[in-house]
Amino acid sequence: MQVDRPGVLQKPLSVPDKLLMGPGPSNCPPRVLHAMSLPVLGHLHQETCSIMDEVKAGIQYVFQTKNSLTLAISTSGHGGMEAALSNLIEPGDGVLVAVNGIWGQRAADMARRYGGNVNTIEKPAGENFCLNAVERGLTQYRPAIFFVTQGESSTGVTAQHHQEFINELDKMYNCLLVVDTVASLGGVPVYTDQWEIDVIYTGSQKVLGAPPGLAPISFSPRAEAKIASRKTPVAVFYWDMMLLGTYWACFGTPRIYHHTIPVSLLYGLREGLAIVVEEGINKCIARHQACARRLYDGLEKLGLSLYVEKKEARLPTVTTIKVPKGLDWRLVQEYSMKKYRLEISGGLGPTVGKVMRVGLMGYNATMEKVDFTLKVLGEALEYARSPQHAKL
Amino acid sequence: MQVDRPGVLQKPLSVPDKLLMGPGPSNCPPRVLHAMSLPVLGHLHQETCSIMDEVKAGIQYVFQTKNSLTLAISTSGHGGMEAALSNLIEPGDGVLVAVNGIWGQRAADMARRYGGNVNTIEKPAGENFCLNAVERGLTQYRPAIFFVTQGESSTGVTAQHHQEFINELDKMYNCLLVVDTVASLGGVPVYTDQWEIDVIYTGSQKVLGAPPGLAPISFSPRAEAKIASRKTPVAVFYWDMMLLGTYWACFGTPRIYHHTIPVSLLYGLREGLAIVVEEGINKCIARHQACARRLYDGLEKLGLSLYVEKKEARLPTVTTIKVPKGLDWRLVQEYSMKKYRLEISGGLGPTVGKVMRVGLMGYNATMEKVDFTLKVLGEALEYARSPQHAKL
Repeated sequence: MQVDRPGVLQKPLSVPDKLLMGPGPSNCPPRVLHAMSLPVLGHLHQETCSIMDEVKAGIQYVFQTKNSLTLAISTSGHGGMEAALSNLIEPGDGVLVAVNGIWGQRAADMARRYGGNVNTIEKPAGENFCLNAVERGLTQYRPAIFFVTQGESSTGVTAQHHQEFINELDKMYNCLLVVDTVASLGGVPVYTDQWEIDVIYTGSQKVLGAPPGLAPISFSPRAEAKIASRKTPVAVFYWDMMLLGTYWACFGTPRIYHHTIPVSLLYGLREGLAIVVEEGINKCIARHQACARRLYDGLEKLGLSLYVEKKEARLPTVTTIKVPKGLDWRLVQEYSMKKYRLEISGGLGPTVGKVMRVGLMGYNATMEKVDFTLKVLGEALEYARSPQHAKL
Repeated sequence: MQVDRPGVLQKPLSVPDKLLMGPGPSNCPPRVLHAMSLPVLGHLHQETCSIMDEVKAGIQYVFQTKNSLTLAISTSGHGGMEAALSNLIEPGDGVLVAVNGIWGQRAADMARRYGGNVNTIEKPAGENFCLNAVERGLTQYRPAIFFVTQGESSTGVTAQHHQEFINELDKMYNCLLVVDTVASLGGVPVYTDQWEIDVIYTGSQKVLGAPPGLAPISFSPRAEAKIASRKTPVAVFYWDMMLLGTYWACFGTPRIYHHTIPVSLLYGLREGLAIVVEEGINKCIARHQACARRLYDGLEKLGLSLYVEKKEARLPTVTTIKVPKGLDWRLVQEYSMKKYRLEISGGLGPTVGKVMRVGLMGYNATMEKVDFTLKVLGEALEYARSPQHAKL
């Protein structure tokens, strides 16, 4: 033996229980966690196929779509972005990406890797896109594909109030619209069919309340036709929607094995979706928005300001709080975690050092948790401002 | 609302307990299933990072390697194949793939998608590669990369007895060796460093006893250097080992967020690895081989023949049994599942209709389960041969 048995694996696994009030993953409801421990089934067992059908129906519901090519990819939410782009883009295709935070940047990076002829329209972090900016971009570049993030979790910005109109523009300019709803789904309205969105995806670990690892995604018939008429194969077997769609029985043909699905995650997502179905998607969205309003009020009372100026541009699921002048935000984070095991997050990408982020998602979007988070935040601010903070 | 709440999600989730004696996934030990239900943690929480380190140490142990670039990708085992190839191959690189079943075929397909100049050496299903065939291939094509499957689960063939020598050949011809051990790891010896394997990967759901969804993988310093000196970016962000390696702290630099890791699967794999560490990898391999021998003996007593003629070419973890003339193997499968909830599998790819497959992996590789499977098989054969099988 060249490599000995590692000592770290001879100790028991240690996983503390935390209250995850950051931008995700969020806490899973007990019903979801229980499902995760159920016995594993084979990837083509009849029961697995039934659960896949149930998950598909749940995804169609939360996206408000009847798209047949709807399923969950076995990947993190960001893999959904990659699957959307790799299937739509053929080398040389014009791609326009709206960049106002890290997710737009990443989409542009990926689109280039897939050979897209990529241009961007840009807005400073904390702002959303006005329709004029979008139309100027579409007129100037005439792209085949336009990518926009509905919930920019790095800045706390949502495109919700323009979404419907952006889609109209897209149809006018005859391009396919890809919408990232990883951080926004369930907190912001989205009507895939009504708004004629061509590709929409999200992650399992935010409002849907399942563990990370699956990316619900849906393609319109127009998007499906673009993929079916590709002249080059999709660069990545793992993302190939024609193969995945067959495995998920989206085309009315027998299922064919594509990969070994992480069936435990499927159980978790199935239960997460069932909980949203139980509540109803509109009530779920209203709950998130009510919680966000309560959070905004409480933050104001604590003397804190929001990073996103325009009210209608604020993402209810991820609130970005300006770091007050002279405050070491890391002490706030440290106090909350050490004393209450409560996660408050720092910035990401363009907002690092500038904001603290509080997430309200799924199981954690309740008035009680908002109030508790505000209480902890208040204490943590006091701690961070006091000279004794070294004592914690 | 355009899409109503789906009724299927208003019923409870139903997951039966089965005995998975197919080619994987295999049953998870209770310790693993329990871990799956633990609370979710953030992707950069200190505890998550510690568990990642533990998983990394466990993977180094089972692969017998000190490679620093060792981690688990958030994907099915087959994503490991894709990550290996997409990182090593630059457009135009010569790739030689040994094809004697579905996995070699798939690797060749993927390598072409990544722009590789792909050639194959081929053997009929059920046979393994002799060294002469490999050397002829290397001499003829002088590839930069050579791909071989250590455990061809579609045919029940292992390359184990030639593995060591193949590596010597590879060094002689100065090409990088990629070895797929998805179905073989833990049932067949592998010494990554000693045999100078350049990329090795496996799946979580076979001998390691975790649910599907993670692919342990390791790159030699030579392979790492090839990736670091690429002239083109890795086509796929999700597989980019330089980014993944940074997230997994493989380069001695601070971790940077790459994707939201499916932390529940990480818990499961951690426990699966801990169980292998507890037993010791050599004992684990010996157990699988002893179970396989007992299975072969029992099958012979039942009058069944093995599909793989050469004894040394038989994969202990997946046994392929010739379908006896005139027997409807589906009845065997149906009887075992309906009466005992025991999974016996049919063929895959080139062996469809020709073989039944019995898997012995991890938690299911015990003498008791071998005996039970043989008992059920005996009954099922009788059932399938009797005229009353319509009665079940």
